[in-house]
Amino acid sequence: MNIKNKRIAVLSPVAWRTPPRAYGAWETVAGNITEGLVKHGWDVTLFATKDSITRANLKAVIEKGYEEDKTQIPKVSECLHISFCMEQAHKFDLIHNNFDYLPLTYSRLIKTPMLTTIHGFSSPDILRVYRSYKDAYYVSISDSDRDSELPYLATVYNGIELSNITFRQKAGDKLVFLGRIHPDKGTHLAIEVAKTCGMDLLIAGIIQDQRYFDTLLKPHLNDSTIQYVGPVDPVQRDALFEQTYTVLHLNTIPERFGLVLAEAMAAGVPVIAMDLGSCREVIIDGQTGYLVNNVNEAVEAVAKIDHIDRKKCRQHVEENFSIERMVCKYENVYEQIFRMEASKK
Amino acid sequence: MNIKNKRIAVLSPVAWRTPPRAYGAWETVAGNITEGLVKHGWDVTLFATKDSITRANLKAVIEKGYEEDKTQIPKVSECLHISFCMEQAHKFDLIHNNFDYLPLTYSRLIKTPMLTTIHGFSSPDILRVYRSYKDAYYVSISDSDRDSELPYLATVYNGIELSNITFRQKAGDKLVFLGRIHPDKGTHLAIEVAKTCGMDLLIAGIIQDQRYFDTLLKPHLNDSTIQYVGPVDPVQRDALFEQTYTVLHLNTIPERFGLVLAEAMAAGVPVIAMDLGSCREVIIDGQTGYLVNNVNEAVEAVAKIDHIDRKKCRQHVEENFSIERMVCKYENVYEQIFRMEASKK
Repeated sequence: MNIKNKRIAVLSPVAWRTPPRAYGAWETVAGNITEGLVKHGWDVTLFATKDSITRANLKAVIEKGYEEDKTQIPKVSECLHISFCMEQAHKFDLIHNNFDYLPLTYSRLIKTPMLTTIHGFSSPDILRVYRSYKDAYYVSISDSDRDSELPYLATVYNGIELSNITFRQKAGDKLVFLGRIHPDKGTHLAIEVAKTCGMDLLIAGIIQDQRYFDTLLKPHLNDSTIQYVGPVDPVQRDALFEQTYTVLHLNTIPERFGLVLAEAMAAGVPVIAMDLGSCREVIIDGQTGYLVNNVNEAVEAVAKIDHIDRKKCRQHVEENFSIERMVCKYENVYEQIFRMEASKK
Repeated sequence: MNIKNKRIAVLSPVAWRTPPRAYGAWETVAGNITEGLVKHGWDVTLFATKDSITRANLKAVIEKGYEEDKTQIPKVSECLHISFCMEQAHKFDLIHNNFDYLPLTYSRLIKTPMLTTIHGFSSPDILRVYRSYKDAYYVSISDSDRDSELPYLATVYNGIELSNITFRQKAGDKLVFLGRIHPDKGTHLAIEVAKTCGMDLLIAGIIQDQRYFDTLLKPHLNDSTIQYVGPVDPVQRDALFEQTYTVLHLNTIPERFGLVLAEAMAAGVPVIAMDLGSCREVIIDGQTGYLVNNVNEAVEAVAKIDHIDRKKCRQHVEENFSIERMVCKYENVYEQIFRMEASKK
């Protein structure tokens, strides 16, 4: 089967630009899938915000991400964006939905098959939609982030753009927290570890829970030992990794994938993460970082960071979490879908 | 054209049961349309919550209204409810959407024509959807609640169930506020009028803005002169009208229709309303109540309430805001749509 003559539509969210300026994990991955498919010679159309940047065909009705333009009601932008794609479904052989659950509810009204990568269950209640559409094609982003009732075609790990991340043989001297500032991500635990170790901590990322930031983090911040540096774009992130001794990812709930873990390791930075959810799928414990169960173990892990071979970290990402690797996996999934669709006819 | 052999789907919201237990204006009207069509011999299917009550065929996937079961994410219930209807579109000759803007974004993916009654623009941003679907069929619920850019087939005033409302020749002695407790509805102005007139005020309805209630209303409440009696169901409402001298509807933004005005007049109760939006379409100024522009005028109007002929109030509703009248109007609209659809073929 020559599948490369198939026309693929990639449906990205419209919370942020694709790729996002700073934060926006789903848009990052949707963008990476798109660019990777283009590189492999596919005919790809990206449905994203109008200000998105892509080498694929861009189709858009939403000017800017609703997180970047608060005059928009998110639901309004979402449904206009989705219907704009669905109404052109006949122009495509496959729609690869990276949006969330809402597009599924349009999927039985179109003839084009839709593949949905489930980037995360934001609430148990959204399972009602996924479970109502068990006839859909699903991909999980880690083996751990699966709902037992859903049929999945595969797990495809997120792939990252390695050319944006400089490998650094020499370690920096700072602990780093990178990610959404939210209790789920354990920013407060990173502060606890830094204080116990007596090391400096840089905190980077968007503040998603302002109350958490104000009450549990702000009292500890200063201009020297524990600093909040704000959100970082890919260039700033690369510079941040130069200063990084290890990334502390002390998530308090199961991680769905952990993009930041892959990004850090790509720079040669070992990571310390809670052994919850997908972290043990992304990190090789003792080889590219450490899985821990509490703050004490994290403190002990910091002391052992020198044992980690930084080249191994980079290599692990190159082998498992590159865009190239992700796109090859998705090509297998697409081929499965085309065969299943052909057999229906 | 024999249009009575056509199969009609009425799509109701799923915030509340259809008909609602107490508050729920859109569900009330969707229910009234449904029962009126059944009475006229149409083949009608109502899409609403599972606990809904109807003489039509009931189709439902959502157990309870999301306002009555806060474990639900409204968007999840909404999209499952809408897609459930859309996926059965081929079974109907017309879908009458009383939901809101979201179903429009599915409408080009189905072959069945969809009529949308716009029950109100909850925010200017939702106009983006309506204006993107100008090929849709629209009905407004008053001449004043129209967007100048949209094409409308007609204005169809809401119709109410008159058998639930007892006509009372004898006036009660209390001022009454009935409706959502929200600044838009001017509950605070009703209190001001009551205090100035030295009359008792009964306030009935759901509290939609708790802060408004706590800060601007609660300090004035007591067990005698200014009482909050909570939400009322149709039976309690009927009893409330027995005690009513006049209903104070001092809305601070343009009214879209004003269901409570029709309900009060049906009981023979004259109404005093701000001259904003649809109020002058629902009330005959000086004959079934008074249109006012401020609290002072409202106070003067209270003094003139005796001049209103209570029979005239009831008669006005019977002639203009009955279910029978509404359904006849909708039948004309349906017929228009069937003709337009036939001419497309």
